[in-house]
Amino acid sequence: MSGNTFGTLFRITTWGESHGCAVGVVIDGCPAGLQLDEADIQKELNRRRPGQSDITTPRKEEDSAEILSGLFSGKTTGAPVSILVRNKDVDSSKYEALRNTPRPGHADLTYELKYGLRDWRGGGRSSARETVGRVAAGAVAKKILSIHCVEVLGHVVELGGIRAKTASIEEVRENTEKNPVRCADLDVAVDMEAMIHAARSEGDSVGGMVEIIGIGVPAGVGEPVFDKLSAELAKALMSIGAVKGVEIGAGFRSPSMKGSQMNDPFEISEGKIRTLTNNAGGILGGISNAEPIVCRIAVKPTPSISQEQRTVDMSKMKETKIKIQGRHDPSIPPRIVPVAEAMMALVLVDQMMRGGFINPSTIG
Amino acid sequence: MSGNTFGTLFRITTWGESHGCAVGVVIDGCPAGLQLDEADIQKELNRRRPGQSDITTPRKEEDSAEILSGLFSGKTTGAPVSILVRNKDVDSSKYEALRNTPRPGHADLTYELKYGLRDWRGGGRSSARETVGRVAAGAVAKKILSIHCVEVLGHVVELGGIRAKTASIEEVRENTEKNPVRCADLDVAVDMEAMIHAARSEGDSVGGMVEIIGIGVPAGVGEPVFDKLSAELAKALMSIGAVKGVEIGAGFRSPSMKGSQMNDPFEISEGKIRTLTNNAGGILGGISNAEPIVCRIAVKPTPSISQEQRTVDMSKMKETKIKIQGRHDPSIPPRIVPVAEAMMALVLVDQMMRGGFINPSTIG
Amino acid sequence: MSGNTFGTLFRITTWGESHGCAVGVVIDGCPAGLQLDEADIQKELNRRRPGQSDITTPRKEEDSAEILSGLFSGKTTGAPVSILVRNKDVDSSKYEALRNTPRPGHADLTYELKYGLRDWRGGGRSSARETVGRVAAGAVAKKILSIHCVEVLGHVVELGGIRAKTASIEEVRENTEKNPVRCADLDVAVDMEAMIHAARSEGDSVGGMVEIIGIGVPAGVGEPVFDKLSAELAKALMSIGAVKGVEIGAGFRSPSMKGSQMNDPFEISEGKIRTLTNNAGGILGGISNAEPIVCRIAVKPTPSISQEQRTVDMSKMKETKIKIQGRHDPSIPPRIVPVAEAMMALVLVDQMMRGGFINPSTIG
Amino acid sequence: MSGNTFGTLFRITTWGESHGCAVGVVIDGCPAGLQLDEADIQKELNRRRPGQSDITTPRKEEDSAEILSGLFSGKTTGAPVSILVRNKDVDSSKYEALRNTPRPGHADLTYELKYGLRDWRGGGRSSARETVGRVAAGAVAKKILSIHCVEVLGHVVELGGIRAKTASIEEVRENTEKNPVRCADLDVAVDMEAMIHAARSEGDSVGGMVEIIGIGVPAGVGEPVFDKLSAELAKALMSIGAVKGVEIGAGFRSPSMKGSQMNDPFEISEGKIRTLTNNAGGILGGISNAEPIVCRIAVKPTPSISQEQRTVDMSKMKETKIKIQGRHDPSIPPRIVPVAEAMMALVLVDQMMRGGFINPSTIG
Repeated sequence: MSGNTFGTLFRITTWGESHGCAVGVVIDGCPAGLQLDEADIQKELNRRRPGQSDITTPRKEEDSAEILSGLFSGKTTGAPVSILVRNKDVDSSKYEALRNTPRPGHADLTYELKYGLRDWRGGGRSSARETVGRVAAGAVAKKILSIHCVEVLGHVVELGGIRAKTASIEEVRENTEKNPVRCADLDVAVDMEAMIHAARSEGDSVGGMVEIIGIGVPAGVGEPVFDKLSAELAKALMSIGAVKGVEIGAGFRSPSMKGSQMNDPFEISEGKIRTLTNNAGGILGGISNAEPIVCRIAVKPTPSISQEQRTVDMSKMKETKIKIQGRHDPSIPPRIVPVAEAMMALVLVDQMMRGGFINPSTIG
Repeated sequence: MSGNTFGTLFRITTWGESHGCAVGVVIDGCPAGLQLDEADIQKELNRRRPGQSDITTPRKEEDSAEILSGLFSGKTTGAPVSILVRNKDVDSSKYEALRNTPRPGHADLTYELKYGLRDWRGGGRSSARETVGRVAAGAVAKKILSIHCVEVLGHVVELGGIRAKTASIEEVRENTEKNPVRCADLDVAVDMEAMIHAARSEGDSVGGMVEIIGIGVPAGVGEPVFDKLSAELAKALMSIGAVKGVEIGAGFRSPSMKGSQMNDPFEISEGKIRTLTNNAGGILGGISNAEPIVCRIAVKPTPSISQEQRTVDMSKMKETKIKIQGRHDPSIPPRIVPVAEAMMALVLVDQMMRGGFINPSTIG
Repeated sequence: MSGNTFGTLFRITTWGESHGCAVGVVIDGCPAGLQLDEADIQKELNRRRPGQSDITTPRKEEDSAEILSGLFSGKTTGAPVSILVRNKDVDSSKYEALRNTPRPGHADLTYELKYGLRDWRGGGRSSARETVGRVAAGAVAKKILSIHCVEVLGHVVELGGIRAKTASIEEVRENTEKNPVRCADLDVAVDMEAMIHAARSEGDSVGGMVEIIGIGVPAGVGEPVFDKLSAELAKALMSIGAVKGVEIGAGFRSPSMKGSQMNDPFEISEGKIRTLTNNAGGILGGISNAEPIVCRIAVKPTPSISQEQRTVDMSKMKETKIKIQGRHDPSIPPRIVPVAEAMMALVLVDQMMRGGFINPSTIG
Repeated sequence: MSGNTFGTLFRITTWGESHGCAVGVVIDGCPAGLQLDEADIQKELNRRRPGQSDITTPRKEEDSAEILSGLFSGKTTGAPVSILVRNKDVDSSKYEALRNTPRPGHADLTYELKYGLRDWRGGGRSSARETVGRVAAGAVAKKILSIHCVEVLGHVVELGGIRAKTASIEEVRENTEKNPVRCADLDVAVDMEAMIHAARSEGDSVGGMVEIIGIGVPAGVGEPVFDKLSAELAKALMSIGAVKGVEIGAGFRSPSMKGSQMNDPFEISEGKIRTLTNNAGGILGGISNAEPIVCRIAVKPTPSISQEQRTVDMSKMKETKIKIQGRHDPSIPPRIVPVAEAMMALVLVDQMMRGGFINPSTIG
């Protein structure tokens, strides 16, 4: 398995399994001089943490971040920042029954076929627990971005078929963290929460859609052929487990639009060239145009459901059925929000460095 | 501008501008021993070529491929394969009027802001002409894939709001190249063609959706964290100009699905573990599961339209209006099909090499 | 600071500082199915460990390796292998005096100039302690190589002007670990040891030369333009602190040789094409030819000496003098042997994967 | 074969064979706004060109550079710069006799073993002709460096056992291009020239040593772990065919030095911290210290000699003898000077971009 590293200049390498002793990340390319402490990271990990509300898995993890390197007197030195999070609430007993019966919608089968063996305890490396490292590194990326006046916000815009009404950036900023679903439309959030409870009681799960917005990104970010800002975001977001689609701006509405509707006209506003609309999602030709960067991701329903499902016994090569026990989120979108934000933040820092917007050696 | 190279082991570097003297590509990492000649490449370039039918731009380009290196006695040697295509029908006169007035929906403004100058002749590097190199390299990738019994097919599934009915792989293989729209549903293809003519006559353009299918990909392809097969495909496809969204399998339908609907149950068929459905689009945990790889891309309407549009004069920083002259496709999807196929083929070869499925040094 | 990752398919990322809480490495791209435990790693760390004999620094470090991920039931799973080594004997008190006075021959000044601040405790990231991660990862690489019948051996061939006589591979294998200097010429080893004691008693240090040999490397390893096997080895070895030169085969003797002397004639031996001599050091055109890979590195004398040296006070920008206290090896070559071996092993595994000699997904 | 691309942000991809139709290079990552024309490139190609004096091969190549992309109105646009050089004086007749008999010291055997076939015309991709692309790209790198007040100079310091006396930078700048050997010591240059003629008349060849100096490099360039400035230079220089060793500063003299001799003391000169000596070769801890960067490379004697040599007939697997006909330089160092300069220039631009010293998007 290669590909546990992401980024060109600002790069992260994540490691660890669901039921191993720890998970972690090494950040390479962090500029010197950044004020950083464990609380910066903890804040984001707490948003991703299991057990934060009654719509998430009851697995109890403090997810306490330990910074092992790269800091001196409260500032980054430019050296790699290694962050470790111990796994605490590890219970593999439920998984023994699943050793030979791959769970539909999970990576059990494909890992087994690719590697000839697998860590079957809780999905091993394919578990959502892998995203702890992404979120920890994303916290550092967000801190760098904030110095450059860039903010990244995510929120749930659809869940189980229920759509939130369009929210302003202010509403997203204000409302998202006020409800466990992370929906900026507080009325609809209540319905979404009920939907999640209903799905759980049926032994089922629901999918959803999350929007991620980059605010304050200067014009000129993005390398405009293969490493377009849009292409890097697509890879970053699609690399999150459970994500089955990524769109930018008008996205999948654009196939039914005409050019006269899709094109964002230019105007001059406060001395700057701006667009009247933002169907482009802030990216033209792979380069940011100073409008908000707007992405949406399609998140599939949690594959772990307690309803009976058809599968096969790999050891006997015959068909069988399973019911998945264990502790699972009945819906992924609320907890994927900080992960998706982290991935956008990582892309933005990396691309801003590549374009000369952030000094790769030192901050300030 | 960095990022004109794509791939890890099988890598391509493209170069060239719309109205420069030539465009081209260097393929690095092509194994030795592959039978290859210019006809292999020409076949794919002809599918991408402008002027191939009356729904494309009337720009006349033979797009004749010249292989400059990497071949000896009709076979690849392992050395880089450099392919050159001269630009013939170059007429920049229409673009002079647009030097200071960025075209809405195009990269004119963002290139100008990023680089401080731009090649304004036909979009320069941001032109769709950049994809000639992708298609030429994709032709080589397809030839390598065919030796490994993998096929890549693309077809238009929606255009200007008109949706084709679901097609079998056989229908895609048989019908797509029989009509200028590249739609496998021959009845609907006629309507789509009419739609394109109508849009052109209104000085407007239409978007669409293209599906790309990888058939015969063995189980186990894909590096399952950041370089998931799905993530690499998302980047590859989103890096094509005009693409605003990428989805895999159920994609943007999954947010409204339940886990019990989304999960593809496993069965045993002809001694192999297969899935009954393919909502996963052939990828579980970022790794192929031997089912067809199914992606769809959202293609925006051509931004070049002859209707009057609002823009700004950058030299005077005041608002103005433009009507774009020149020769343009009123709809991109039919010609994007070979480009999207090329990108999937490039990803598959690269990932199959990374996984040990294709020997990186020599074929056969 | 970027560049804490090394390798293309088999890649390592190291982190940690001399006087931080720990150092470590993440190995990405380790195939599944490799039998591995902490003892495999400890064996190599013990060869690098400070305090292993009376010619090394008296700093006491157990350098006890903890594997945090990537293992299941005693085998690698393909997931990243994260290895942690806690720093135990950390005493920064001697370094406070050096905060403003860069030590000649060290990286103090250049780190300060590049990053605007530095971790001045024991050199921070620029310390030789950074090589713990290299050696730990090298132990894994060696284990993979041994399965493919490749062995890597290093030994000291010159120290403080004293040259060992040419040793056979058997002598290197037998004798090197029998003496603290790691010289295969046991007679000369005694003189070298005396030389080191003499240098220390004078408050001085001595340089040396180390040879590293790769045995059993099959023909065909190496990518023959920029990523020549020789070029990758040169980078790998020159990236070790204190190394000021790298040569392959006849190396710096070749400038005074004639072609008729330098060229290794081909013969047939036991049905294989072999060379009569090995001035090429096992590499022709950047590709291995199945002869032993032979590299030598020039190692400078330890820059930390207790004699008075001229330096500057950076805070006052005036000249001053320092005497360096602290615990240092008076000669680096004996302890650099396992580090250099590790770097060759890492290059060989990576290049053997790139060439299709080692399956990147699974062993056996 | 992978690895035809070099660099991280400023990257070049070379292609082409000795007796194919052309050779070339694509430069990706060249900032916009650089004044550039073909004469800039031609100047350096002329220094590398065969037939420039009577000590080089009589092969007649104009090596006329054609820039195919990336320029607009005399300036770079940021898009890839593709440069093509047609091969003119191609005569493969002499090589037919060598199809089955690998030339000692050449890559014939290793290419055959690795790829199963080879372009035997003049060495194909392994020919020194591959360096045309390096030199063309190096010319662009030098132009970028000159804007940042950095200069790269190379000269022959040893040839066939004859050593030049130590030269000042001024002598190197003044004298090197005044004699066909490219030696800054004009007296010794005459002896070297005679040595080359003598070797040729004996059907033999001679090796040598070349020094490359980077002047004006600011302090702080280099990424100080695996991508040390010294490590990148080592790889860059060792990747040139015929190079068997690389040293920095005191290099292979340092093994016999003491710390008190090797360490460069710091002083203050004109308000800056400087070193009194430069045994470090301008690099401490992998980072430049503003002193001249000094590298030397060991160049083996040309392997193509007309004396009879032992080899094997691969088709019959029996021993035989060959005499190599054809047109060859009897000594490589004079013509390797511009190649080595190019490689240093490429490394410096790339590392200065990575460190934030050169804006990757736009010049000025």
